[in-house]
Amino acid sequence: MEDTETFSLGNCVPRDGGTLPDAKIVFKTYGALDADRDNAILFPTHYGGTHVNNEWLIGPGKALDTNRWFVIVPNMLGNGVSSSPSNVGPPHGGASFPHVTVYDNVALQHRLLTERFAITHLPLVIGFSMGAQQSFQWAVSYPDMVERCIPICGSARTAPHNLVFLEGVTGALRSDPAWNKGLYTEQPTAGMRLMGRVWAGWGASQTFYREHLYRQLGFTSLEEYIVREWEDGFTQGDANDLLAMAWTWQHADVGATPGLDGDFERALGRITARTIVMPCVTDLYFPPEDSAIEVKHIAGAELRTIPSTWGHQAGGGADPAAAAFIEAAIRESLAR
Amino acid sequence: MEDTETFSLGNCVPRDGGTLPDAKIVFKTYGALDADRDNAILFPTHYGGTHVNNEWLIGPGKALDTNRWFVIVPNMLGNGVSSSPSNVGPPHGGASFPHVTVYDNVALQHRLLTERFAITHLPLVIGFSMGAQQSFQWAVSYPDMVERCIPICGSARTAPHNLVFLEGVTGALRSDPAWNKGLYTEQPTAGMRLMGRVWAGWGASQTFYREHLYRQLGFTSLEEYIVREWEDGFTQGDANDLLAMAWTWQHADVGATPGLDGDFERALGRITARTIVMPCVTDLYFPPEDSAIEVKHIAGAELRTIPSTWGHQAGGGADPAAAAFIEAAIRESLAR
Repeated sequence: MEDTETFSLGNCVPRDGGTLPDAKIVFKTYGALDADRDNAILFPTHYGGTHVNNEWLIGPGKALDTNRWFVIVPNMLGNGVSSSPSNVGPPHGGASFPHVTVYDNVALQHRLLTERFAITHLPLVIGFSMGAQQSFQWAVSYPDMVERCIPICGSARTAPHNLVFLEGVTGALRSDPAWNKGLYTEQPTAGMRLMGRVWAGWGASQTFYREHLYRQLGFTSLEEYIVREWEDGFTQGDANDLLAMAWTWQHADVGATPGLDGDFERALGRITARTIVMPCVTDLYFPPEDSAIEVKHIAGAELRTIPSTWGHQAGGGADPAAAAFIEAAIRESLAR
Repeated sequence: MEDTETFSLGNCVPRDGGTLPDAKIVFKTYGALDADRDNAILFPTHYGGTHVNNEWLIGPGKALDTNRWFVIVPNMLGNGVSSSPSNVGPPHGGASFPHVTVYDNVALQHRLLTERFAITHLPLVIGFSMGAQQSFQWAVSYPDMVERCIPICGSARTAPHNLVFLEGVTGALRSDPAWNKGLYTEQPTAGMRLMGRVWAGWGASQTFYREHLYRQLGFTSLEEYIVREWEDGFTQGDANDLLAMAWTWQHADVGATPGLDGDFERALGRITARTIVMPCVTDLYFPPEDSAIEVKHIAGAELRTIPSTWGHQAGGGADPAAAAFIEAAIRESLAR
């Protein structure tokens, strides 16, 4: 993709086994790294997104102000830009792509920062949704490196209900006979569209629909919103990519960091970053209750709930009021 | 089915057209009708349920005490017991079953009560989920007849988000090639199982899963719960029945009562029944916000929210504490 750089990591072995051959993280940077390499902000991507989807917060004068900060956006493994089922050849691509965890993403991003940029200090790690999951993992894996952490509409581990929600949407994709257990020759678009239709109920809130807020996005009817925003959206990618990222999501758990014996609370206890956990009050799959539990186990962490009726998507900038709320939190955090 | 009676209505024309030939409501009664026919309680069924699923509230000494009350449970059209795609022959059965509304169900139930029993006064109409939708419609269609109304985990019209949720679960069923636009020769069980898997995330709450409350139902793992409770559950019925009832649900709206010009608030304004609207605080598709809006437009109505973490299913008696809460409300209402 345009203006991106590629960091090659060679053959990698994910935490849970398998082979990621000639692994690549495709990333984009914004702003300039200071001479002392002390002004970097890391902003990982979310499910189905690329670095482009993060750019609403990045730029001169924006919350992640590139006049001061050097923002690095690494594309998540599986998103079709970094190493993914869709761009890795046989025998490790497509349906044979290895299971990659949030932990793996963060470990490889750490290599990017240290080996490519010699960065050893991150004033901020921030992310939305699965980007928030990577942010939590960063603060657990490298507590001495992460000064601030702002996970937005995401969790340090995937809650059981969130896992069930993902069973539904991935089951929808897999229901298409054209999927053929991942050995398709053409994209299983009927399954991808159904995935979008099922997701439509989850990605926005009951109030968003009751108040017809999709009209603010330019859609004239509920059905048009479902088709154009959700069904069409899920046909933009690759089916195996979508399933690979969903596997990563379903298995997210900072407690599974090697050496922690699966101890979730102990993992959160390792975080020293000044953390602002930002769920959205109407998020149906990352509900604020999970964030409240996490905050209890992170020293000094603040729970700052986004008061939006837009549901999960509020964390991605779709709701202008929520976007302003998020931007204010970032500015405040970076000013301290 | 055992101990049920059948009321035959002849050929009927649903509000939205089509033909329901030789229409039948299969119902069951509990207790005895007084000589003055003044002690009847109507308790319509919910989606995927039959009269059997209502029996937890009915019996000697129970909230609907059959020592005093005569309880009539009419099976909803489409549920496989009353007239349904699965039991109506060509040319109006199966995929050709007409579109039946909540309004139609109530109109035919009214014939059952007046023609079969000469009942003109109902001390109480009560129902759960789609049964609640029928209860609201009863109070709107026949305000002079309904003295009390207790809709549990349901709404007077299907909210847009609820409609989107149903798009997802019905899309899951239809995704099975064996469904064949309803012209199947064997049940499309893969689609019905997927419908159950998608529904699993909606039918219980985030907290229900976080706290592993399915263990209280005897399941030992999350996956076992999804498979046995939800996937298996949706294979018990008939695919066209499930889709017919979903159509009924998606089009529920007391405002669409003939003569009201689609005016939802005016419809609610017709209700004279002493009404207790009982949403569950964690219901994901009949959220309490919708109930609060309805209560504002019903004279003297009370909003009594069930404080359960079990989500929608709390209204069906699955959670013992919620069941006790509901029973108390019924007893209190009937004592006034």
